[in-house]
This record gives sequence, structure tokens and C-alpha cells, in this order.
Amino acid sequence: MNKSVLEKAITIAEACADAAHRTVAPYFRTPLQADAKMDDSPVTIADRAAEKAMRTIIENAFPEHAILGEEGGRSGSESEWQWVLDPIDGTRAFLTGRLSFGSLISLFHQGKPVLGIIDQPVTNERWIGVKDEPTRFISDVLPGHIGTRTSLDLSYAELSCTSPDIMSPEELLRFNNLKKVVRRTSWGGDCYAYGLLALGQIDIIAESSMKPWDWAALVPIIEGAGGRMTNWQGEPLDLNNNDGTVLAVGNPQLMPEIIKHLSAR
Amino acid sequence: MNKSVLEKAITIAEACADAAHRTVAPYFRTPLQADAKMDDSPVTIADRAAEKAMRTIIENAFPEHAILGEEGGRSGSESEWQWVLDPIDGTRAFLTGRLSFGSLISLFHQGKPVLGIIDQPVTNERWIGVKDEPTRFISDVLPGHIGTRTSLDLSYAELSCTSPDIMSPEELLRFNNLKKVVRRTSWGGDCYAYGLLALGQIDIIAESSMKPWDWAALVPIIEGAGGRMTNWQGEPLDLNNNDGTVLAVGNPQLMPEIIKHLSAR
Repeated sequence: MNKSVLEKAITIAEACADAAHRTVAPYFRTPLQADAKMDDSPVTIADRAAEKAMRTIIENAFPEHAILGEEGGRSGSESEWQWVLDPIDGTRAFLTGRLSFGSLISLFHQGKPVLGIIDQPVTNERWIGVKDEPTRFISDVLPGHIGTRTSLDLSYAELSCTSPDIMSPEELLRFNNLKKVVRRTSWGGDCYAYGLLALGQIDIIAESSMKPWDWAALVPIIEGAGGRMTNWQGEPLDLNNNDGTVLAVGNPQLMPEIIKHLSAR
Repeated sequence: MNKSVLEKAITIAEACADAAHRTVAPYFRTPLQADAKMDDSPVTIADRAAEKAMRTIIENAFPEHAILGEEGGRSGSESEWQWVLDPIDGTRAFLTGRLSFGSLISLFHQGKPVLGIIDQPVTNERWIGVKDEPTRFISDVLPGHIGTRTSLDLSYAELSCTSPDIMSPEELLRFNNLKKVVRRTSWGGDCYAYGLLALGQIDIIAESSMKPWDWAALVPIIEGAGGRMTNWQGEPLDLNNNDGTVLAVGNPQLMPEIIKHLSAR
């Protein structure tokens, strides 16, 4: 991997986060007619505008890189560098005025995630993860320190998932096997929960129905904070071949035991 | 009802919110050993200290009023005025670093809620509800305007609940009847979701296992924003006799239809 490309990419990714931030924040909690079609809703308008702004920044800086965006699909040539963008992760949270949504920006090199950003444009929190570097947390007002929590006992773990509705009945059974042995389970959270895991506030997140743009940015953030991310089988997350299950764990030593619970049916 | 008592009580309730704010905020996202007992956790320390500070303020201003607090139980004589306090609603949210917790302060007159405050000490948002007055939303940075959303069609409604785990199997069946006919359901939220309903961001909240201090402050806030709060049978919430179910609706005209869905088994 060309290190100077990565160095420049970090600057460009931050510029993308700034652009998404400026575009998305003004639409937050703007009045929404209850019967508005999703296509005309503030979240859709903000989503599209933010992705367009980010694509322009990346295309100007790296015309040869590929880009995959939640809104605009795939563009660019076959490149060893691929950007993956989700301008508003947590559409439902955004639409209901919650603070758990965020903009996700990531870069893959030869299929491996090397850079990820979560930007929360309303609370002014940003997580920046770079492969083999410690994750950074940049926050104006809200407190927090990077570093996952290490506990060797699952019975003390805080488990989190955005919604039971994202799981199939079979996945829900497997999730419930894990839920039974942890301390507590909280619901809601979207990408923000992964930021909290990187701050040592949550120990395990298990979710399913996740698209590449939902998890891509989170991997370098979690791993640079001391945690690990895989699918529910413990295999690396793969842009082209994944069953939609995502597992993030603060203490990697607990991974085998957690996978065991998630595998039981 | 003596209006001058209520006027003074609003000032005192705001002083309580300020005291809880100052006490609780410094404990947010402080490091917590995963294996800490709940009794020694930052949330418990903050909870107790905030309730003590609020009780002192109320006792000095209104020595004859009764007080019911989540931490300290019931104190004071039989009075027509009763304060109900929850220094940290959303303990689990607080412990996992989420922003949906808050301090709840309320006052009842002859068993009817007449004053309620939600204070979010980290995002600096405060909702103040007074019987027969429009609810006020005071916020430093985050946007929002008071006023529930009016839609006459349930199929456009945003439903919210903190966690499926607070419902009994029988309640979950009834909740799912409602869930089937609304647009979307989001999970998580604690008291903050009720603030969002007052801002027209959420249309319906249905929860159970709610103690008086969980819902007391919310009633004047929701009703002063145009909505309505009852139990799942459509009956007024009662400090002394309630089954733990709580329903908040932005558009009161939808109440009969919602109750019908929540009653079906």
C-alpha cells in the first residue's frame, strides 16, 4: 500500500466529512409532513446532496479511485482503492430527531478497510480510524476517550443492537442466545453505538441486514480503539461476499465465546 | 388550585433542573469498570446526589409539600401538592454513553400532573410543561419547535419504544398489533423520545413497566404541545393505580384507533 496515497486520503476523507456535515445539519429536525413520500423528505434531499458533495471532492482528488455510495451506487474504474460512502447512516433516527445518525466515509485498499470516519454533524463528534493507528475522537463539547473496555467476563458486558426488526427470526434466536448471557441489552444506536464502543461505553454490538456502507467505516475505528469486527461467524467482513451480519467486540479475547453463543440455534 | 403556588413551583422546578444538571453532567462517560457493582457506578452516585440536591431545594421552598423520588422514596406529609423526581431517567442510556437520558421533575396537585420538566444536561435541551400552557423548549444548540404532528392516518405514524424487553409477552403481542399498522418503529429513546414527540418528530410512544417517576413529568409536556398521554386502555395515568402501561400520542384524534389496536389480543 502506497502510504502517501493514504496520507492524502485522510485529508480528503476529512474534507468529505466537513462537506457532509455542512450539508446534512441544516435539515435536522426541519418540519416534515407526516404523509411526505420518502423521496421528498428532508433526509432524502440531505442524503443525496451530501453524497454528491463527497463524490465531487473524491473525484477531484483521486480521479482513478472507485466509489460506492448508498445513494449513487458504484462509479469509477476497477481500482485497488475504493471509497465507500453513507451520507446519512440511521435514516430513521434522523427522521425522528434522534442523535444517533451520522455520516460514514471509508476507503478500502485491495478489499481491506484502511480508513473510516463517523461524523455526527449535530453533536459535533467525529471518530477517525486509520489502519494500524490509534483511533482519534474529536469532540467540541461531549466527553469521551478512545479505548475499548476490557473485561474477561461476558456476564458484565453491555450488548447493543439498533432494532430487533433488522434480524430474521433465525438470527433473532441466535442473538437471544447471546443476550441471555450478557449483563444488559440496549436498543437503538445506528453508527453512533459503534462510536460508543470505541469509547469503552458498550462492549458488544451484533446486527444483521447490514450493507457494506453501513459497516465499512466502522472497522478501522473499532480496531484502532482495541476492538475487533467480523461477521457472526467470526470471519472478516467482505465488501463482495457477506451475509449482512456484523459483530463488533471491545475485547477481542471474548470473540470465540461470543461467536459460540451467536452460532447456537 | 392556588396559582401563586404554581408560579413559585415553576421557578423551583427550574432550580431543581439546574441542580440536577450540574450534578449529573460531570459523571457522563466517565470510565466505568465493566465489573463495577451498580451501587458504586457513576450513574448511581450521580442519581443519588442529584435527588438529594433537588429534595433540599424543594424542602426549603415548600416544607409542607410531599416528595416522591426514584432513589429516596416518599417523604413529607399528606399534601395536595406532591413532587415526583427521577434524577436520571434512562440509566442504561447514561451507562452506555447515549444521549437519550434526562432528569425528570414534576409536580402533582390533588393527584393531577400540573408541571413537568425534562432536562438533558449534556446536549443542553430542556422541555417545560405547565398545565393549560404551551410547552416551552429551551435549547442552546440543537434545533426544534414545540408542536406535535397532526396526521389523520396511522399508516404515516412513527412509533417508538425504549425496548421490547420492558413488555410482557402479552403486552408485546398488543404492541405488535399497533406496530403492524404504523409506518415505522424505532427503538431506544427513554424520556428523550417524549421530548421528540413534543417537537413533532415522533407520533406515538407505547411503553410498559413504567413507574410514576418515569411518566409523571412527561404528561404536561406532551399535553402542552398538543398531544395526549394515557395508559394503554385510554385511561388517565394515576400515581397510585396504574398497570405500568403508558401511551403518548401526538394527534389526540388518533387515540381511539390506537387504543383499539393496543387492546386486541
